[in-house]
Amino acid sequence: MTAAGPRRGRRGGGHDTRGLILAAARRRFAADGFDGATVRAIAADAGVDPAMINHHFGGKEPLFLAAVEAPFDPAQYVRSVRPEATDGLAARLLATLLPVWDSPAGAAAVGLFRSGLHRDWGVALLRQFIQRRALTPIVEHLPGDDAERALRASLVASQIAGLILTRYVVKLEPIASMPHEQIVALIAPNLQRYLTGPLP
Amino acid sequence: MTAAGPRRGRRGGGHDTRGLILAAARRRFAADGFDGATVRAIAADAGVDPAMINHHFGGKEPLFLAAVEAPFDPAQYVRSVRPEATDGLAARLLATLLPVWDSPAGAAAVGLFRSGLHRDWGVALLRQFIQRRALTPIVEHLPGDDAERALRASLVASQIAGLILTRYVVKLEPIASMPHEQIVALIAPNLQRYLTGPLP
Repeated sequence: MTAAGPRRGRRGGGHDTRGLILAAARRRFAADGFDGATVRAIAADAGVDPAMINHHFGGKEPLFLAAVEAPFDPAQYVRSVRPEATDGLAARLLATLLPVWDSPAGAAAVGLFRSGLHRDWGVALLRQFIQRRALTPIVEHLPGDDAERALRASLVASQIAGLILTRYVVKLEPIASMPHEQIVALIAPNLQRYLTGPLP
Repeated sequence: MTAAGPRRGRRGGGHDTRGLILAAARRRFAADGFDGATVRAIAADAGVDPAMINHHFGGKEPLFLAAVEAPFDPAQYVRSVRPEATDGLAARLLATLLPVWDSPAGAAAVGLFRSGLHRDWGVALLRQFIQRRALTPIVEHLPGDDAERALRASLVASQIAGLILTRYVVKLEPIASMPHEQIVALIAPNLQRYLTGPLP
């Protein structure tokens, strides 16, 4: 902790600038969405030059990840699942995600999920984070139009969010202490229907 | 708000007694579970006579519901779903629960769910509440042994909790504003597999 007093008013560098940008980014992303929130508007809200955002965060996408306080970027794991190969996609997805959620970074992500659910701006950020960094990379290769992919994405979210909640937050047995292979065998068929099955 | 000062020490009736019993009940139910927490122990923790618990709440089960601050008892809705008839059970369950969650009492329940997830004792109470008043009444008529019913109950919880979270808390579209009939058509087949389908 540094004394904030003497540094107030300095907007060129240092911790204050970073914090001001993050606070402005959270408000803007929550209110306007990722696409609607411009770097220029966030910079104006924070009272800094837009170049400072690139200097501190390297762009809008890394700023978004920092604003959400994401301990990792789900999109990076989704890529290794090979979402373009739809056969067996649900099983690969669960088998890849379970070890991540069971790790310390996963515990931090579950903590973020719990605290995000508690605050309204947190929910707006969380929703965009889940959509952009987890769901879109999973469903973007599926056939059908955008509306069908959005529908499948929300169904996938309903099962995966429920699994996270049941296993890691509410800790309901036997799911809470079940080996990964058993969870994959039980849940992948349902998840695969949401991804690629015929829907009514 | 009444001034608490002059009433402290009175343990016979009135608001203090009720509040003391509720606080003790939350601690005991969270620590020892519903079955382990006795009325006698809760009364001792609250510093009241056990008869006061029956006087104020009418027994351990109503005390539990009051401690959880449940706006309604899910068990009462599950009964009207006729869980003993397994054919079409998932569709009846969703068609019954969606109008409840969409009602003001349902909004209160979703609020309780969000705030419960935020506190550790809240999670312990929530887990027991979900198990005892929602899941057990749903699965108690299913064939198989207790372990299989507990497994199916936790799978059902993973889908229903995820639906509540996606629709009411994170408000992910299109699930957030989808008509009930469409949700039933999309999700009931998956939920029915968890209830009665062959599992690996």
